[in-house]
Amino acid sequence: MPTIVVDVMPKAELLDPQGKATTGALARLGHDKFENVRIGKRFEFTVDGEVTDAVLAEVRQVADEILSNSVIEDVVAISVDGEAR
Amino acid sequence: MPTIVVDVMPKAELLDPQGKATTGALARLGHDKFENVRIGKRFEFTVDGEVTDAVLAEVRQVADEILSNSVIEDVVAISVDGEAR
Repeated sequence: MPTIVVDVMPKAELLDPQGKATTGALARLGHDKFENVRIGKRFEFTVDGEVTDAVLAEVRQVADEILSNSVIEDVVAISVDGEAR
Repeated sequence: MPTIVVDVMPKAELLDPQGKATTGALARLGHDKFENVRIGKRFEFTVDGEVTDAVLAEVRQVADEILSNSVIEDVVAISVDGEAR
């Protein structure tokens, strides 16, 4: 069955406290090569049947309206079986 | 600056209660095309300088030991500027 992946990240212009804390913790543990870490969400949708344009449009709508909070987050990528759409 | 993306998902053989709830909620809202939804994490590392094999090895170690709980989660992908590694 095809898998649609939706990636949601905190907006670039906003502070990501979770990522900031992770960056600091990694540095304290000796992993100081990383300038910055940001943490977002990854959704995997399994679709029964073919991924048509209608299905993709529905995923896009769900991603924008339900899975992400557009005030603080961006939908950065939607891909089908590894291919960006 | 190059960005390294680490994707962490709940193991396929385990129930993902968050994803299950989302699948149910979407179905109740009329989005019933989706067989299943699973929810994981996406980490974006910004690296100051080149992404060498040493940096990648460190990211892999951090991903396996710190960013994911190997009992319930898998590191499903590590990519650099969109290219899988």
